[in-house]
Amino acid sequence: MQDALLALSRYWTERGCVTVQPMNTEVGAGTLNPATVLRVLGPEPWRVAYVEPSVRPDDARYGENPNRMQTHTQFQVILKPDPGDPQELYLSSLAALGIDVHAHDLRFVEDNWASPALGAWGLGWEVWLDGLEITQFTYFQQAGGLTLDPVSVEITYGVERIMMALQGVGHFRDIEYAPGISYGEAFGQAEYEMSRYYLDEADVATQRRLFEDYAAEARRTLDARLPVPAHTYVLKCSHTFNVLDARGAISTTERARAFARMRGLAREVAELWRERRAELGHPLGVVEPPPAAVLPATLPEVAAPATLLFEIGTEELPPAEVTRTAQAVREALTSRLAATRLGHGEVRSYGTPRRIVALVDGVQPREPDAERTVRGPKAATAFDADGRPTAAAQGFARAQRVDVAELRREDDHVAAVRTEPGRGAVSVLSGLLGQVVAELRAEKNMRWRDPKLSFSRPIRWLVALLGETAVPVAVSGLDSGRRTRVHRTADPSTVEVQSADGYPELLERHGIVLDGAARRERIVAGAAELAAGVGGSVDAEGEAALLDEITNLVESPTPILGSFDPGYLQVPAEVLTTVMRKHQRYLPVRDSDGQLLPHFVAVANGACDENVVRAGNEAVLRARYEDAAFFWRADLRTPPEAMKAGLARLTFAEGLGSMADRADRIARLAEALADRVDLTGAQRAALARAGALAKFDLASQMVIELSSLAGVMAREYARRAGEDEAVATALFEMELPRQAGDALPTGVPGALLSLADRFDLLVGLFAVGASPTGSSDPFGLRRAALGLVSVLRTMPSLRPVTVSLGLRAAAEALAKQGIEVPAGAVAEAAEFVRRRYEQLVLDTGYDHRHVAAVLPLADAPAAADGVLRELSELAGDPGFVRLATALQRVRRIVPAGTAAGYDPAALTDPAEVALHRAVDRVRQRLDGRAVGLREFASAAGALADPIDAFFTDVLVMADDPAVRRTRLGLLATIRDLAAEVLDWSALGSLS
Amino acid sequence: MQDALLALSRYWTERGCVTVQPMNTEVGAGTLNPATVLRVLGPEPWRVAYVEPSVRPDDARYGENPNRMQTHTQFQVILKPDPGDPQELYLSSLAALGIDVHAHDLRFVEDNWASPALGAWGLGWEVWLDGLEITQFTYFQQAGGLTLDPVSVEITYGVERIMMALQGVGHFRDIEYAPGISYGEAFGQAEYEMSRYYLDEADVATQRRLFEDYAAEARRTLDARLPVPAHTYVLKCSHTFNVLDARGAISTTERARAFARMRGLAREVAELWRERRAELGHPLGVVEPPPAAVLPATLPEVAAPATLLFEIGTEELPPAEVTRTAQAVREALTSRLAATRLGHGEVRSYGTPRRIVALVDGVQPREPDAERTVRGPKAATAFDADGRPTAAAQGFARAQRVDVAELRREDDHVAAVRTEPGRGAVSVLSGLLGQVVAELRAEKNMRWRDPKLSFSRPIRWLVALLGETAVPVAVSGLDSGRRTRVHRTADPSTVEVQSADGYPELLERHGIVLDGAARRERIVAGAAELAAGVGGSVDAEGEAALLDEITNLVESPTPILGSFDPGYLQVPAEVLTTVMRKHQRYLPVRDSDGQLLPHFVAVANGACDENVVRAGNEAVLRARYEDAAFFWRADLRTPPEAMKAGLARLTFAEGLGSMADRADRIARLAEALADRVDLTGAQRAALARAGALAKFDLASQMVIELSSLAGVMAREYARRAGEDEAVATALFEMELPRQAGDALPTGVPGALLSLADRFDLLVGLFAVGASPTGSSDPFGLRRAALGLVSVLRTMPSLRPVTVSLGLRAAAEALAKQGIEVPAGAVAEAAEFVRRRYEQLVLDTGYDHRHVAAVLPLADAPAAADGVLRELSELAGDPGFVRLATALQRVRRIVPAGTAAGYDPAALTDPAEVALHRAVDRVRQRLDGRAVGLREFASAAGALADPIDAFFTDVLVMADDPAVRRTRLGLLATIRDLAAEVLDWSALGSLS
Repeated sequence: MQDALLALSRYWTERGCVTVQPMNTEVGAGTLNPATVLRVLGPEPWRVAYVEPSVRPDDARYGENPNRMQTHTQFQVILKPDPGDPQELYLSSLAALGIDVHAHDLRFVEDNWASPALGAWGLGWEVWLDGLEITQFTYFQQAGGLTLDPVSVEITYGVERIMMALQGVGHFRDIEYAPGISYGEAFGQAEYEMSRYYLDEADVATQRRLFEDYAAEARRTLDARLPVPAHTYVLKCSHTFNVLDARGAISTTERARAFARMRGLAREVAELWRERRAELGHPLGVVEPPPAAVLPATLPEVAAPATLLFEIGTEELPPAEVTRTAQAVREALTSRLAATRLGHGEVRSYGTPRRIVALVDGVQPREPDAERTVRGPKAATAFDADGRPTAAAQGFARAQRVDVAELRREDDHVAAVRTEPGRGAVSVLSGLLGQVVAELRAEKNMRWRDPKLSFSRPIRWLVALLGETAVPVAVSGLDSGRRTRVHRTADPSTVEVQSADGYPELLERHGIVLDGAARRERIVAGAAELAAGVGGSVDAEGEAALLDEITNLVESPTPILGSFDPGYLQVPAEVLTTVMRKHQRYLPVRDSDGQLLPHFVAVANGACDENVVRAGNEAVLRARYEDAAFFWRADLRTPPEAMKAGLARLTFAEGLGSMADRADRIARLAEALADRVDLTGAQRAALARAGALAKFDLASQMVIELSSLAGVMAREYARRAGEDEAVATALFEMELPRQAGDALPTGVPGALLSLADRFDLLVGLFAVGASPTGSSDPFGLRRAALGLVSVLRTMPSLRPVTVSLGLRAAAEALAKQGIEVPAGAVAEAAEFVRRRYEQLVLDTGYDHRHVAAVLPLADAPAAADGVLRELSELAGDPGFVRLATALQRVRRIVPAGTAAGYDPAALTDPAEVALHRAVDRVRQRLDGRAVGLREFASAAGALADPIDAFFTDVLVMADDPAVRRTRLGLLATIRDLAAEVLDWSALGSLS
Repeated sequence: MQDALLALSRYWTERGCVTVQPMNTEVGAGTLNPATVLRVLGPEPWRVAYVEPSVRPDDARYGENPNRMQTHTQFQVILKPDPGDPQELYLSSLAALGIDVHAHDLRFVEDNWASPALGAWGLGWEVWLDGLEITQFTYFQQAGGLTLDPVSVEITYGVERIMMALQGVGHFRDIEYAPGISYGEAFGQAEYEMSRYYLDEADVATQRRLFEDYAAEARRTLDARLPVPAHTYVLKCSHTFNVLDARGAISTTERARAFARMRGLAREVAELWRERRAELGHPLGVVEPPPAAVLPATLPEVAAPATLLFEIGTEELPPAEVTRTAQAVREALTSRLAATRLGHGEVRSYGTPRRIVALVDGVQPREPDAERTVRGPKAATAFDADGRPTAAAQGFARAQRVDVAELRREDDHVAAVRTEPGRGAVSVLSGLLGQVVAELRAEKNMRWRDPKLSFSRPIRWLVALLGETAVPVAVSGLDSGRRTRVHRTADPSTVEVQSADGYPELLERHGIVLDGAARRERIVAGAAELAAGVGGSVDAEGEAALLDEITNLVESPTPILGSFDPGYLQVPAEVLTTVMRKHQRYLPVRDSDGQLLPHFVAVANGACDENVVRAGNEAVLRARYEDAAFFWRADLRTPPEAMKAGLARLTFAEGLGSMADRADRIARLAEALADRVDLTGAQRAALARAGALAKFDLASQMVIELSSLAGVMAREYARRAGEDEAVATALFEMELPRQAGDALPTGVPGALLSLADRFDLLVGLFAVGASPTGSSDPFGLRRAALGLVSVLRTMPSLRPVTVSLGLRAAAEALAKQGIEVPAGAVAEAAEFVRRRYEQLVLDTGYDHRHVAAVLPLADAPAAADGVLRELSELAGDPGFVRLATALQRVRRIVPAGTAAGYDPAALTDPAEVALHRAVDRVRQRLDGRAVGLREFASAAGALADPIDAFFTDVLVMADDPAVRRTRLGLLATIRDLAAEVLDWSALGSLS
């Protein structure tokens, strides 16, 4: 391993990198070394390569986990500015390390990096070697909150992982570190002891004090304008924070506060460093942008219609961007072509991770000529009394380059008609394609070395051919040409394209499937065949999202069947498939009963040594499963009650106690809600037991590791511990829904716990002032509110549980733990939930007026839903429209604060009396019941005519106050009668 | 420079070293990395090489000093066990770095390393490249207070210094760090900023708190048996301490306390690490000692007398050991030969840094045979009545291998006379020489790889020849042979010795001067010649100690004349020569008036490129003078008063205020002492002014850097500031004597200040309980006490100042500053001073009984001296002896507590009366004056006879109490009369 570090040092110093030493205070990553995080700031060039032992207390595992260590070795490279070919430089460095890049499957898999503590982010990839993440590759966009210009390329090698792959060992301690000395021999004791320290022994009070002292020293050195020592102290803060975190001493709110503080300091450090470098006159010089590409002076002409090929060559795009960008390019081309006079046929587009391609059929060689009429001076001034052209007319004709005799009249002006000659196709396309590239944007964009381009990932080449003719395109520093790039490790790796026609076939000959649908089909078919070989199948429908992603991760899909030890099948299938999908993008293989088989399908990219790649992927999965199995076995040794006791050690949020406190509140709250609804004895028992165990799996090692399995593991562990199935189900369902579109609880106990969970979260965090602001919602309160609304909407038996009831009950449960809920917090939370309901129904397509009209009812979302449905159906009904219009008119005229009620004896006008009678009849029909909108409309429909007549015949605002009061009382009575079912005024005009 | 680091890494990894990363917390040296300080413990083998950026806040210079940085780069190598040839491996590494070892002067100069904070020490060298210290080379003997077995070799390269020499640049910032990037560009800003932080900005209160927190965390992790994190926290303590120190916030007592604390923790870490490694079963294995050397089965014989050559080849010995060991070997050989019967001529011995050689003339080929008589059974049992030998006699004869007829009679036993044949010379010498080696010891000894040897430095080879015959010697792992080693860089570097005769000439042919006197002569002559070439000379007598040292630093003295910029001569000569002698071992060159010339003579070892070596040495001196000149100029800008104000920032010792407080006390105390003696007005004025400025130079940059110049600089700066010469002299003299044998003050003001300084130091530190214990005397109290005794002994005008007076006055001065001196502290200090006086006079050879007798007078050392001198002279005088004996008899009989005085009228016995009269006469002669011993003896001599007569004729203890009282009162009167001059009982028997 030490030879590998020397080889990397040599490789990069030969490419102009300075070597520096690791930071001499604990850092979590090589990025934090000032040689990266400060040097990437400002305009000076910088190339550096160094080793950085990276300390992550949270990854401490006593040296037992094969892949995870509290200290691992990073090899860090910074290239500033982007040299234009950093991926190629990187791949050569792997070859220099002795990795056969032809045999292995090397992949750049989207991974965007952000360090909240540093105010830094960048876009890039994890690099996979046969499924193993060996490198983080990032285009640094911001550091210390400052936008970076020029952009730096950061390459971070995970040295232990590379060594494990190269040496074929399954545990880091078995790496040969030096001749005759294993990694374990060299560092094993330190790994164990530092794990013990970070996980068990570090003194929390001391570490908190250290954090404060370090932060104060950072503050002091910033004030003294010394960014270097200030940065050191920010690093010390960060490490201390990590130690506290590993000790489980950091609550969610503390985390947010500490991050904000560190981010603020880091930003000041960055700004001060940049200033100081400027004051020192940028000792290393200033990076110049690359020269702009230029178009040739003359552009070629073509003689006949031809196909246009436009290929935008990129570094590996995120899967979602591949499809999106292909479509965006097609639309941009279509609309831009439409703005010209160039004739053409169909516009198609395709995407792979490394290219977005548009093909346009039958592009005409030229635009047709066009006539254009230009208005000149008024006819009166253009011709003299004799009808002869004046000097004005002659001047106009000269300017328009037409003969004065050719001037026409148009209205009372003269006009010249000019022929605009059509441009050649190449000329048209040259500018147009450049604009398409310049305007390319993704969901999340980055910059690299071209100052005028911004996209999801760098654009590195362009191919533009009209038939066989090259179309010159120049945009920022990029020139188009004929050379495309094929597989990275192919020899040669670039190919000349002779003609637009046959381009897809050319790619196919180099193993690249341009069409996404075809790639996907090939993956599905290949995976199915491989799965069939072991008596299984791949659930293409169930894995649709994963297949879509894989399709856009490869250009040359090469499915490979791998296997794992069937012993791991003892671990719940959800765990195994979560690991496969989420971490590895492997397709699970199942038997005809849907049971998992000990196989998977990995999809490599292009030709490789399948045995090598299979072995590599299997090793990665083995390590991950070993982890999972370790957690599984460890967790099974702990009964749920004992595990639950562990919740006391997990802080939930500052001011809201531990996770155990929260679980107790949820249980109590669920019981309180249960009192409002009818439960069977069995349901009540299941609720009680599940409440007692609520959230216990959060203390399991598996969930600490794979948090998305919360609930799933609770169910599994509860079953294994012999709990009733109803209890296990409730424990699972209380976590539902986990995200939008997720399943909802099917049983009442689970639903009540799910609601209680969310009511507690909302009231608790509103109580401590941690409500979401802007786009920031660190506690997922929006998701929680949406979840509880969804549950209330779908489970009829829970109708008696309203939002406000739940929130008040949650406040009471908090109060019982001595946590005071400030006045207004419950109301704020209720309003917050109401807004989520509004958003939810708007998103499903309801008319915004209807939604507004039912919002007052949203405290009971299921009821509001009913009214909303009825309202949608009734909205076109003329009778309803008349009723609504009449009721709105009533509402408008009755001043706010007017009380309902009147003395019928005081009514004199026939229209008054008629209306009184109609109101009385409606009241009798409704009989004080809460009714739906349809029933109300049916009963109250009869009011429309008497109301209209009343307004026609009667002056409400009569001079006599008594008369006025009586008439307003009558109208207010109608208002209140109607108010129960809808906010009629929000409904607006329905006609 | 980065290439150099890679080259070193490669060199050492090719030699089996593991590479590790620098420590990820600040360390002051590579030694502190656990890869050194923990791995050297215990029996496991370990070879490691790594880079260590070493942080020394105290060396921060804002990046301005050419050689000194708060962070410098060490390259650290540990070889465990000692491979037997570490120096050779090291020299090859320099060649691998591109250093031409033939052109340069490479030297191993004694430097013993110790880290009090780590409880670690070792013996070794600084390696000099043309006078520049480039490497620390140490045989590690202890770490964490534990003795190391096996011993590790530690090699620490100072990379910046090597680079500066290789690249020929004069300032570290100009080193080319990487192609196109200078060291200053890469690290200059950090150097400046961290300097600012360490020197000016670090918050003292925060750092103190950090120290406590770190120490507590170390304690906690030790209790959890985790040596690795505990070590990390000890390192953090250490760095924090260094920061506080650089901020000037550490007092002497704080320092001692912090060191004790860190040492204690380090020791526990070490012990715990060793234990843990044992518990883990020593994963790296256990080092086996090298195989023991064995002697051949038969040893050769020689036929004729021959010269014995015995060469003990060592690594470079400390200069003092060269001479001492040569003599010790001669003595050992002489006495061991004397214990054999082997005839031989003169035994001579010689020493160079790399060999101790004994030559013995005319060693006889064999021991002569010898007869030995063995006593047997009694004659009575050996022969029967018939005179025939009994079975007993026969058995005895058989055992002694003689014929029974040959038995003789000796007294009443039988005896056998056996002939013991002489051994061959080789056989005798083989064992004897081995014992000489095994028993070799130096003042300070070390171990290396041979478990049975211990010496000043490793013994690496033995040559033993008797004439031309090799004498096999086997001791521990060492074998003798014929090959000696010549100059390290010679080719070949070993030479076969054919014969003992001609060995010195053989060496001479290889450039080595064996005889120390000849080497010294060659140096003196060479230096004189070079100095004469520039019109100067070298003061061989004045530089005798330095010449002795240089003589033992080289085997092939090669004096080289160097020069320096005459501009530096503006700096005081004492500064320049101190730097030359102490740091560089250069001989100063002076003109005929004794004024320094801008030249020096360096003495290289062996053939080299003189121009290269001259340039290198000149560059080293330039850097050192640049430093000194920088301090000189900076100091001159600060007037003495302003500088003195800086003393307030220097803490002196905990509980005793700042250095300014101390200086004030000294001034006040000196004035108080001055009241007891006669001073001229000029003296009084000089004292007042010097007192006001006392110690001001301690705040000068020069003295902070070169503390041995305290006083010297005060005089210089005072003169430059226009102070009276008497004031300047007093400021210088108040620091005298600086060590044993140093000059003493010549003027009264200086002497009074010198005394005041030392009285204050003693009382102050006794007051705060920091009195010396055992061999530990961190504040130099022994030296202070010796100094004040010396001053009081030599300056007659200060007689009125007694030790107790001075100490009491010091206590008063402390009390005026609110510092309470506990009861007993003054008495303890007085006793401590008395003991120093005792030691001083014993060391000069006075009889211990005489010394004991005058000790009661030592409160006034000059007076005690006088009595002691007289006593020595009188001790042989019969009259004095009689007097002393009589007085002792008087003292013995008078019980303690008996008051003097009696009623003469009560005397009746003639002997009583005679004694009374004699006493009266003596009293009249002495007339109440304090007299010297001689005068007392002369006056009191007449008492001897009456005393003797009194004891003969009179019963002192008469039955009548009144009589008894009178007689005892008479004797007590004599006792008291005599007690003033001497402790007569301590004198013991003089006859």
